[in-house]
Amino acid sequence: MLSIEAYRKEFVDYLNWFTTLKEPKNLYEPLQYFLRLEGKRLRPVLTLMTTEIFDVDYLKALNAALAVEVFHNFSLIHDDIMDDAPLRRGKETVHEKWDINTGILSGDAMLIMAYRLFENYEADTFQSLAKLFSKTALQVCEGQQYDIDFETRDDVTIPEYLKMIEYKTAVLIGTAMQMGAIVANASETEQICIYEYGKNLGIAFQLLDDYLDAFGDPETFGKQVGGDIIENKKTYLYLKALEFSSDENKKELIRLFSFSSGDNKAKIETVKQFFVSSGSVKETKTQIQNYTNKALSVLQHLNISEEKKAVLKQFGEDLMSRNV
Amino acid sequence: MLSIEAYRKEFVDYLNWFTTLKEPKNLYEPLQYFLRLEGKRLRPVLTLMTTEIFDVDYLKALNAALAVEVFHNFSLIHDDIMDDAPLRRGKETVHEKWDINTGILSGDAMLIMAYRLFENYEADTFQSLAKLFSKTALQVCEGQQYDIDFETRDDVTIPEYLKMIEYKTAVLIGTAMQMGAIVANASETEQICIYEYGKNLGIAFQLLDDYLDAFGDPETFGKQVGGDIIENKKTYLYLKALEFSSDENKKELIRLFSFSSGDNKAKIETVKQFFVSSGSVKETKTQIQNYTNKALSVLQHLNISEEKKAVLKQFGEDLMSRNV
Repeated sequence: MLSIEAYRKEFVDYLNWFTTLKEPKNLYEPLQYFLRLEGKRLRPVLTLMTTEIFDVDYLKALNAALAVEVFHNFSLIHDDIMDDAPLRRGKETVHEKWDINTGILSGDAMLIMAYRLFENYEADTFQSLAKLFSKTALQVCEGQQYDIDFETRDDVTIPEYLKMIEYKTAVLIGTAMQMGAIVANASETEQICIYEYGKNLGIAFQLLDDYLDAFGDPETFGKQVGGDIIENKKTYLYLKALEFSSDENKKELIRLFSFSSGDNKAKIETVKQFFVSSGSVKETKTQIQNYTNKALSVLQHLNISEEKKAVLKQFGEDLMSRNV
Repeated sequence: MLSIEAYRKEFVDYLNWFTTLKEPKNLYEPLQYFLRLEGKRLRPVLTLMTTEIFDVDYLKALNAALAVEVFHNFSLIHDDIMDDAPLRRGKETVHEKWDINTGILSGDAMLIMAYRLFENYEADTFQSLAKLFSKTALQVCEGQQYDIDFETRDDVTIPEYLKMIEYKTAVLIGTAMQMGAIVANASETEQICIYEYGKNLGIAFQLLDDYLDAFGDPETFGKQVGGDIIENKKTYLYLKALEFSSDENKKELIRLFSFSSGDNKAKIETVKQFFVSSGSVKETKTQIQNYTNKALSVLQHLNISEEKKAVLKQFGEDLMSRNV
């Protein structure tokens, strides 16, 4: 097996070839621009890695890996329009650099192009990949809808929140890995195991993201620390803090999350104190560990070498310490 | 074989079942609303009809027919956002009744749902349907991009215009029919023939639409007569009029198509006179007949009964006289 860095390099070479400009230029240029933005390429790397975990050459998985990455970027382009986000990975978003219509249409083309990549596989593999892909893609849309719905709801429960992040983020990580297993012709049981590994790691990853958004090191986090608090996002930290707080503190926290102007610095500090004192931070850390453990526990059911189990274990740990 | 009306009814029943409300409501309600709007259902009816042309029960084609209709409506919802259109089939568009974000996300979900409908077929049929669908869906996106590009270009050629309407409209009609043939397990040659029949009929249909937009009977046309002229749309009629006109008339026509306020009634009348006097109307009618003939000429290569050829011939003629 190659290193993460080597898989990433191989993938980016393939992506660069794939995004060679086609006509009509105004449709394909935005897509090329966005797909070529610097990124971790976490999902496609996982696809390639998984294929090799099951003893098949990663080259066979390049098209499946690309489909996952193209889909992921399609969803980012459309989400950025919906969120009115000016920047993505420090660069202008598509609707900002061009316009909303360009973002819609180029995104649509990307979703279709993702499906086309499966055409490089035999009919049975094609069907397995496309079925899994469609199921997941629809869940991602549903997750995005729940996320939008939650903005204007004040009765979001913890299970609802967990379902939202599962759909919006985690299932695609599970799917990226299962696709690698499908390409490698792994058994159904192995496919389900690796999907569950990825999905649970994805949930842990998103909970960690929620935590780091408030408590991360501004030097290394990449995004603005406290961004979720400024935007009154009902994250796991917030919902757990509400659950654990006295009526008085609960009222104050709801009040703080009811306006979006004023002294952000003071608001961030106060809210963070609530998160700590309520026990929400402790509970969030426990849950991150729980979901990571749940992911790792699946490994024992996999019929692969101890060496390869160690690779997956290391990957999970690196991801949770944000080393990848 | 059933009548067009009977196929339509069977299809609409299936569509109504398919659009039963799911969670999250805010994602699926707009999609239900839009898919259930009254419509001719031309494309899905063609899919069902084609399957029976090749001697297989139309019931087998319901999922393919639905995929075509769901895709068509996905593209309408996103196009309506791009065109800022308030109405579709006399009712509010999705982004008008809800908002742009709802239109984007519900549209995305529909594109994925269209693919999922192919899962009801065996792996080989699944792959054939999905491959054809993806190729066509991407052409529809490209056609929409060309249409947008043409708005701000003043050097659009006739071949470019024909390619645009082929991609934006005609290929989906060909595809609707080819899907019916795929479901019926027709040979590759028969599939290509029926695709060409549908595609050429689709081009004729769109050229007729261009013609009727200017010269149709306001009582029966459905849309505002003269709409394309008011919007300065570079239709076949306009491009041919430019080609056939003296330098002086050409200049005047370009001038008339350079602003969008003022006396629309007078503008429509003047432009229509140019269309007639330049010979553009005559040429457009000739081309409509040419593409219709091209469609019908394909029928001789089909290995089906004379009775069924007569059905296709009648359908083409009815479509061109706008009786269906």
